Formats: sequence, C-alpha cells, structure tokens
Amino acid sequence: MSDNESQWLGKTYNKKNIQECISKIKDKFGQQFSDSKSIREQHSHTMTIHESELPDGVLFASNKNDVSDAVKICNDFRCPIIPFGVGSSFEGHVNAPFGGLSIDLNNMNEILNVYQDDLLVTVQPGVTREQLNTHLRDTGLFFPIDPGANASIGGMSSTRASGTNAVRYGTMKDNVVSIEAVMPNGEIIKTSNKAKKSSAGYDLTRLLVGSEGTLGIITEITLKLYGIPEVIAGGRVSFTSIKDAADTVITTIQSGIPVARIELLDAIQVKACNLYSKLSLPEEPLLLLEFHGSKKSVDEQSELFGEIALEFGGNNYEWTSNNEERNKLWKARHDAYWAARSYMPGTEMYSTDVCVPISRLSECIVETVKDLNDNDLIGPIASHAGDGNFHVAVMLDTNNENEVSKLGPFLDRLSDRAIKMDGTCTGEHGIGQGKRKYMYNELGNSVDVMEAIKKSFDPNLIMNPGKLFI
Amino acid sequence: MSDNESQWLGKTYNKKNIQECISKIKDKFGQQFSDSKSIREQHSHTMTIHESELPDGVLFASNKNDVSDAVKICNDFRCPIIPFGVGSSFEGHVNAPFGGLSIDLNNMNEILNVYQDDLLVTVQPGVTREQLNTHLRDTGLFFPIDPGANASIGGMSSTRASGTNAVRYGTMKDNVVSIEAVMPNGEIIKTSNKAKKSSAGYDLTRLLVGSEGTLGIITEITLKLYGIPEVIAGGRVSFTSIKDAADTVITTIQSGIPVARIELLDAIQVKACNLYSKLSLPEEPLLLLEFHGSKKSVDEQSELFGEIALEFGGNNYEWTSNNEERNKLWKARHDAYWAARSYMPGTEMYSTDVCVPISRLSECIVETVKDLNDNDLIGPIASHAGDGNFHVAVMLDTNNENEVSKLGPFLDRLSDRAIKMDGTCTGEHGIGQGKRKYMYNELGNSVDVMEAIKKSFDPNLIMNPGKLFI
Repeated sequence: MSDNESQWLGKTYNKKNIQECISKIKDKFGQQFSDSKSIREQHSHTMTIHESELPDGVLFASNKNDVSDAVKICNDFRCPIIPFGVGSSFEGHVNAPFGGLSIDLNNMNEILNVYQDDLLVTVQPGVTREQLNTHLRDTGLFFPIDPGANASIGGMSSTRASGTNAVRYGTMKDNVVSIEAVMPNGEIIKTSNKAKKSSAGYDLTRLLVGSEGTLGIITEITLKLYGIPEVIAGGRVSFTSIKDAADTVITTIQSGIPVARIELLDAIQVKACNLYSKLSLPEEPLLLLEFHGSKKSVDEQSELFGEIALEFGGNNYEWTSNNEERNKLWKARHDAYWAARSYMPGTEMYSTDVCVPISRLSECIVETVKDLNDNDLIGPIASHAGDGNFHVAVMLDTNNENEVSKLGPFLDRLSDRAIKMDGTCTGEHGIGQGKRKYMYNELGNSVDVMEAIKKSFDPNLIMNPGKLFI
Repeated sequence: MSDNESQWLGKTYNKKNIQECISKIKDKFGQQFSDSKSIREQHSHTMTIHESELPDGVLFASNKNDVSDAVKICNDFRCPIIPFGVGSSFEGHVNAPFGGLSIDLNNMNEILNVYQDDLLVTVQPGVTREQLNTHLRDTGLFFPIDPGANASIGGMSSTRASGTNAVRYGTMKDNVVSIEAVMPNGEIIKTSNKAKKSSAGYDLTRLLVGSEGTLGIITEITLKLYGIPEVIAGGRVSFTSIKDAADTVITTIQSGIPVARIELLDAIQVKACNLYSKLSLPEEPLLLLEFHGSKKSVDEQSELFGEIALEFGGNNYEWTSNNEERNKLWKARHDAYWAARSYMPGTEMYSTDVCVPISRLSECIVETVKDLNDNDLIGPIASHAGDGNFHVAVMLDTNNENEVSKLGPFLDRLSDRAIKMDGTCTGEHGIGQGKRKYMYNELGNSVDVMEAIKKSFDPNLIMNPGKLFI
C-alpha cells in the first residue's frame, strides 16, 4: 500500500461511525468488552519494532455467535475489525492503523472433538498448540506444526504458520482440513467436510489459511493429526562452510530420507548459543537433525545422513535416540531465540525471514552475511534448511539512529535478494504491515487478483485493513 | 444450477455475438482453428453418459500469447471458453452447453525445466503424466500422481486429480507449487515463486487447482518431484468382510506405516477381475498394497502390515519386492477398469466416486452395495481405501429404460450418503456438469462465496460456464 492508498483507505473509515459502533458493541456485550488503555495496548502489542497502533476497544468473544453479531454491527458502521489470538506475530498483524474493534478469541479455546480413527481434531481458534498436544497426550497422536511461540491455532491458520518440522509434516496449508469462519457480512460458512480429499469446487480452506484475518474470522478448525513416532533420534554436525552444510541438506532431501527437522545455524548464531547455553561447539555452521520412525527406520535414517554429511566434510557427527541426550544435542537450537536476544546486551532484536528454492539457500545466506558485515550489522541466522527458509535476527541499539536507519534498507535488500532467486519475502512470518511493500515485487499482477478477491468478500473493507495489501 | 438459473445463464450469451467472435478467432488464427464437426465432437466427448454439447469452434493454442489473445477476443464478445486437455474427465467438464470456443492445449506440451536440486519441474499444460515420467526417467526422479488415465498436467491441475498413491503423495493440491494462468481479461499472472513454502498473501495456486477452468486457463505448472524409491514392494490379502478390510486400512494408517498405495476391491470387482484377467482370487474383499522405500524399510512396512491384516482376519497375505511378481500380484488392480467395463457385455459403464472420513468407509461401502442390490443394479467397487475414497462403476443396458432411470436416483442417494457421513460427493472426479446439484447439499452457503469469487474473476462469465455452479 503506497502512502496515497493508505490516506485513501484512512478516509474510508469515519471516526464518528467507529465510535458509535464501539459504543453499540459495549452496550451489547457489557463485561465482555473493554476499552481500557492497558487492554487496548496489549492487543496491539506485536513482537516487533513496528509501532503499536491501538484499537478503540476489545471484545472477548465467547462463541461464534458473538463473533457473528459483532461483525454484523461493525459491517453496518464500516468499523475495522482486528482478530486477535495470542499476538505472537512479528509483522504488525494485530495493529489497528485505522482504529476499530479487536476481537480477542482466547476464550474460544475448546477442543471440540478428537476423531481418533480419522486422525483429525476439531478445535476452536483460541486453543494453543501446546494445549492441544497436552490434551492429545493419551491418544498416541500429536499435532506437529511448531512455529516456536505457543501460538493459537486460529492465528497459526490465519498466517499459514510452519516452523522446524515443516520439512516433514508441511505447513498449516497442508494440515488444516476444514475451517468454519464468520464472513464480513456476519454469515458463518464451513469450507469443507472431513473427507481426506475432495474435488468439490474452490479450495476455500486454503484461501482462508494465510489470509491474515482479511477475509473473515476463523471460528473452528479441523486439523490433521499424526501418530507419535515410536522413536525420535537427534543429530548434530558441524561444517566449515555454509555451502557444505546446504549441499548436505539438498542431498539428504534428494535421497528421500524423511528427516523430521533439519536446521542450520550460522557461525555467529552458534557463537551466541555457546555463550547463552554454556556450550563449546565449534563456531562454524551447524546442522541439527531429527528423525522420526521405528527403531530400525530411525537408525537407518541417522546412518544414511551421517554418510552424506561426511561426504560434504561434516565434522563430529553425533546422533542418539536417547531422549535426554537428544535434548542435550539440540540445546543450541532450543535456546537459539533467547541466545540471539541476549547476544548483544542493550540491543533489541528484529527478526525477519525469507525463503528460497533450496538450491539457492547457501548463496542467499552467504550474500546476506556479507551484506550484514558490509553494513556493520549483527544478525545471527537460523534456517529451516530443508525448506530453504531462514531467519535473520538483526540486533539494534535503538538509541543509535545511524544503526536503526540501516535496518530498512537491509530488509529491502534481503527481500529483493530472495525474490530474485525465485523465492519469497516471507517463508513463515506473513506479510502483515511490515512486508506489504514487497508484494508487487514478488507477485506482480497477482496482487490485483488478490485485491479483487478481498473486495468480493469484504466490500466495506472492515476485515483487518492495512495488512497484506489493502 | 437450477433450470431457472440455467435459462438465465443461457440468456447472458448471445448467439450472434458468439458467431462473430468465432469468425474473428478464425481470421486471426487460420490453420490453428477448426470448426469441423468431427473436431468439435472430439472436443466435447467425455468419458461419461453425459450427452455431448459441441463448441462452435476449436482453437489449437501454441503458446500463452495465443491463449491470452483468444481470451481477450472472447471476453469482448462474451463468448464462452472451454479449456481442453485430453478429455478424460468423467463429469462433462469439456462440454459446451452454451456453445463457444474450445481451447485445445495439447500443442503446449513442452517440459520447460527440470530443477533437479529443488525436486521441481515446470511444464506446459499439455504435457501428459506419462510423457513427464518418461522424460524424467534418467534423473532418478518421478511425478507420482496417477489418476489412471494418461491425463494432461493442465487437466489434472484444473480438476484437483489424485488416484491410487494419493495416500502417500497427496493430490494435485499438494503437488502443484506454482501456476501461470491467463485470466478472463487476458492478463497473465503467476501465482507464486518456487520456494518450498511462502506466507505471502492469498494462496492463488490452490484456488486455481480444482477450479475446473472457471477462473482462468492454466498455461504453465511447476510441480513437486520425488526420488524414485530404491525398492517397491507389492502385497495382496483377502478378507471375509468389507469392515475387516477397512479396519485393517484404518489401523495401518494410524500405525504410521507410510503405504504408497492401499486399494480395496469389493467381491464383485474381484469376480470381474477373475473373469477378465484369468485369475482365481477368492471372490471376497481384496486389499492391494504398495510400499516404497529402502530395502529395510520396505521389508519392515510389509511385515508390519501383514501383522495388522492377520489381526483382522486377512487370508493368504502375500508380498514381494520382486518387480515381476509384484505386477502379477497387482494384476487385478491394473485391469480393474477394463474388467469392470467388460463384466456385463452389452452394457455401458457409468463411473462415479465419493469420499468419506476413513472411519465411515466400510459403512458407506456396505450401504452402497445394499442399495445396488436392492435396485438390481450391478456396480463393482474399487476404493482408494487409505483416503476413504471409492468408485462405483454402474453397468447399464442403455436400451433398458427402466434400468437407466434408476441411475440418477442411485447417484443422488450415494452423494447424499457420503455427505451425511461428513464426506464429499466427489473425491477426485470433480463437479463438472454432473455433480453441480450436490454442491449446496455438501457446502451450503460456501457455494455463494465461491460464486462471488467467480464473478470477481470473470464478470462476463466466459470461463467454462455451466460447470461447478454457474
């Protein structure tokens, strides 16, 4: 969205109407509503350096009818709506640039039905992934998608979340079977039934997954589940260059080894981990592996991987199927986020990600490290290497204007680099506010098609405006 | 579409405009155009009992610019367009109920690029799946989706095709990475770059997959590839009841055995196969298995499966990783289509499919067999059991009006049964013309949302009208 468009969009909302709408919501929902500043602040807090933009009020929805009723009122008054899960997104998804109503879905946190024979579960959007897996513990099943934060399933669906084990289990796109959602006119739709596959019409499920609350509000999600693996093995191996590590990853994937996780940390991230977690890993690129399966299969996978790693000069490959030892091997990765955060005391961390075809991963990381060095920026890199996806955690002294001024241009170059390599400006963080400006560069006139879809769903542009593109 | 709607839609097209449009296309494309009756007949031929409805002309497109130019002309004249691959669909997808231009994409059959490191390939829509796999033979890679017919990749994408090994490799929805398509206004869009994952905006790729040519014409597809398995094993086992066979399937999937195919034939289909392929299988429900992986893994999978089958009373479980013997074990399945066709000489076969949650599969098949028996209809059943998907091949003496009159009500009951079991009226055959009337029953007001999307893409309703819903 250009500044012009933003101004135009701002003018489509009328402050007086919004206030009238909010007071109507307040009357209707009583105790479920709050306009206290601290609550409004919490609901625009994002884990980023995007400045907070507060909604005018927050509704704590109890059920889909609450959501539908509130949406109808907002639609009548053309009042923006911002759906809120746990607020763990990085790109300003829950900000309210034009004010409006934040709809908090945390009280809709029931696990409605586990379909054990069908390996499915139906949940409300406020269920978090940890809550879900705790609930499933006795069934022998689990839900694999793990974006790091204990995010809500509604939020994860809305942002097409993924994480470390997407290389084996896919992203939310692959694991959401059906969605119930409130449309901008208040109607409730269900995108599909629960068959494993269907060729009946447009794939509305996947249109809603990743739509960042701009097309409707998700009120129920049916997810795929998986049997908890009989055995989980972990592995770790160092390389002298990013290229060798990345080539190991490519060959592993090509060989059809069904790795469950294959993570790459660059030298500076390993250094941060050594400091934070009191480890003594060689400060060079590190691959961390996880293998799921039967004892036989996991042994075979671990050994085959070892042979590949050796071929590309991997040093000190260790692996284990003992849980405690596996956790030790993986400690660097588990602590990577906090290690990065505490690496440069007094700095703030700005986390971003891009994703490229795996053949371009090493080139993209190497160029990015050079870019950071050339600009005196510190940014540890952690990569979901099996997907060609990597994160840069740029450390900024926010009191140092010169340093802060370098961030924007660096992010622009990073996105541009990934897009030029036939990749994307965002592998898993979404677009939100932060990456809107890269959309045309990446997708060209497809963005016009997206806008047309948006307008056909939401002619009054009430659903999470200022995100994605409008 | 009700009769009323159909009449309304018919009125939106003007015969004179269509004729003018066709003659403009003829002038522009010369030898690439044909309006001969035999060519037009070929292009509305469908492998069904749906009556043929001929287009007014056929354009043999050579490249995306041809497609774009033709679409622009048709859009100006509001002339219907029917994209044509190899015409192997069952539900009247290539019929031209309102006349118009068939665009044949078979000459756009280049394999543009194999990205070996990224396990991707980019093809034109006229490439067939057999052509693709022949081309890939020396790379050690393959494209797994196999709907039976040697369909075109464009057609398979447009109908969200799947087939026997979807249980392991997914459907076209899971295997199309990016699409280039001509929109109804003639613009060419690309839905995404080639990164393995992205969270950048709406998932237009999956919106086009399964849209049956109603939103645009696919001119390029990037697909996922897989390493050819080191070893392929096949297996076969009989059961005394459909329920035991289906329970074996459920337990197999739950145990996380990554079966590549798990097919179920009912007793009458086995009988047909015995006759056609000169086999002497027990005439009771039969499961056929395929396992992909390393020697160790395939052995383990085959043995584990055998234990499960035994638990549910499976008889004479045989398996082999010898290719020749595997083909013998699988002969019944390979010949199933032709065995069904020739089972009742003098009859025509009407093939349909539904898909239900796997927990309901045996119930749905048993009720369907009873329904067939109660109505003196013959319909062998072949099921992609791991997906809860099954086909009924109803045999009809088309000269026997009484028999023919039973087909429609049987299909209605079958769809209704599947939908009531939280399934779909079409697992993989698509909607086309034949299943439009079930859409509201299955998806309710989601169909209105689909229609709104359709109209935002294609306000003149030129793209494959009379299919899906409009």
